[in-house]
Amino acid sequence: MEFDRHIALEGGDHEWTAELSEGWVVGGGVNGGYQLAVVGSALAQAAPGKPDPIAVSAYYLSAARPGPATVRTRVLRDGGSVATLSADLEQDGDARITVLATYGDLGALPEDVRTTATPPDLPPLQECVPNSMAPEEIRSIAPLMDRFDMRFDPRHVGWAVGQPSGNGELQAWFRLVDEREPDPVSLLMVVDALPPVTFDLGMFGWAPTLELTAHVRSHPAPGWLRVRHATRNLAGGMFEEDCEVWDSAGRLVAQSRQLARQPR
Amino acid sequence: MEFDRHIALEGGDHEWTAELSEGWVVGGGVNGGYQLAVVGSALAQAAPGKPDPIAVSAYYLSAARPGPATVRTRVLRDGGSVATLSADLEQDGDARITVLATYGDLGALPEDVRTTATPPDLPPLQECVPNSMAPEEIRSIAPLMDRFDMRFDPRHVGWAVGQPSGNGELQAWFRLVDEREPDPVSLLMVVDALPPVTFDLGMFGWAPTLELTAHVRSHPAPGWLRVRHATRNLAGGMFEEDCEVWDSAGRLVAQSRQLARQPR
Repeated sequence: MEFDRHIALEGGDHEWTAELSEGWVVGGGVNGGYQLAVVGSALAQAAPGKPDPIAVSAYYLSAARPGPATVRTRVLRDGGSVATLSADLEQDGDARITVLATYGDLGALPEDVRTTATPPDLPPLQECVPNSMAPEEIRSIAPLMDRFDMRFDPRHVGWAVGQPSGNGELQAWFRLVDEREPDPVSLLMVVDALPPVTFDLGMFGWAPTLELTAHVRSHPAPGWLRVRHATRNLAGGMFEEDCEVWDSAGRLVAQSRQLARQPR
Repeated sequence: MEFDRHIALEGGDHEWTAELSEGWVVGGGVNGGYQLAVVGSALAQAAPGKPDPIAVSAYYLSAARPGPATVRTRVLRDGGSVATLSADLEQDGDARITVLATYGDLGALPEDVRTTATPPDLPPLQECVPNSMAPEEIRSIAPLMDRFDMRFDPRHVGWAVGQPSGNGELQAWFRLVDEREPDPVSLLMVVDALPPVTFDLGMFGWAPTLELTAHVRSHPAPGWLRVRHATRNLAGGMFEEDCEVWDSAGRLVAQSRQLARQPR
């Protein structure tokens, strides 16, 4: 599937080569969530028996561009049920992102679920607005949109026609364009795949991420994901963006928060 | 002031010695937020002109104990208005926490505030329950409680008398016991100072943190802080704990999320 080709790694023994695809360009660089999935895929092989991201924190140092990249991983501690790992993604000697992570085996966790959060209140698929309807000026600066089949809640797409709601919320049905099923590593991309929530505040343009932390809490069930972005603290030239990813079985499978700069 | 003595560092040039105080013991180790403030204090000196934590992610590798600790800091990138840094806190060669961070100058940020989050709905101080009333069995396993003057919302202290609300929420007025005023580094401790939110779910015991990320968004105004903890996704033996810290001027000065293991 396309996503697997785009995150493919060569090498091994804690040093890998990836080819960042131009299909993931958005604004001034290569999408941060995609970079995180590339790194996350390398980390999945770093500690035996611990293939799944549980907590991953990425700090973004410079804008990545399409082309070769080197991923280096390191095991900081591997004991008990989880391992603590670090990784870097570099291009031509410049660090793009640096990562700390906890990996483990999501399939081995207890099955208790006492989630009190509620899934995004999304209209049925056929009542939502597909990303294929996005204006050409948005698609041209965001080729990554063509990687996805997204169906936006019509209440949160006013920004596309000059009428942002002002609430700082976006939510959509989500899947990869070739219906490649979600897995724990792909969720690291999904949490950064929707447009910046600042669009809904009428602030367009690129919102560079300083830091993004994702928690993956379960293997996602096959099928459509529901993704919700929201910000509640836009201040001092920055904003936090919280993301929730719910799977087709109604489980909250990933949560993330990022700190980003407001678009200029 | 007491807190300044407890986070004091000796050394310099990216390698420091600290003395972790036994006054911060809780459950099986030394409080994670206190460790983060010690590291955060060293990082404040790592990049010239960038004294303030903006985003800090800590991964907890092993339980710290009172006594000497070594903090090592490293500048990963220092350019423009922020620096990306890393740090480790070790005891006897064992890593306790490893940290990535973005530091900058909070005083130099634009003054715009468009926060839509609302402060914790806390009753007046005199109607809240002081931590000095905590049962002796709690204070004996949590000496760190004596570092704080906390006034708990009476609606969220049922756990102290065997009647947890089941909502997964805790909120309190907060200040250091000697009225030492809050600052950006002390907020790294404040986000992990209240009891685990799992107490409000009737799950007692220590809840070891796997990962904690804090965003500090402004210098806090002097005076009492309002702190709110909540969890919405307790599942698979883990829970996320979101924390908000509001200052006396009504600004949301810090947000954090941690992933922790459920108490056994």
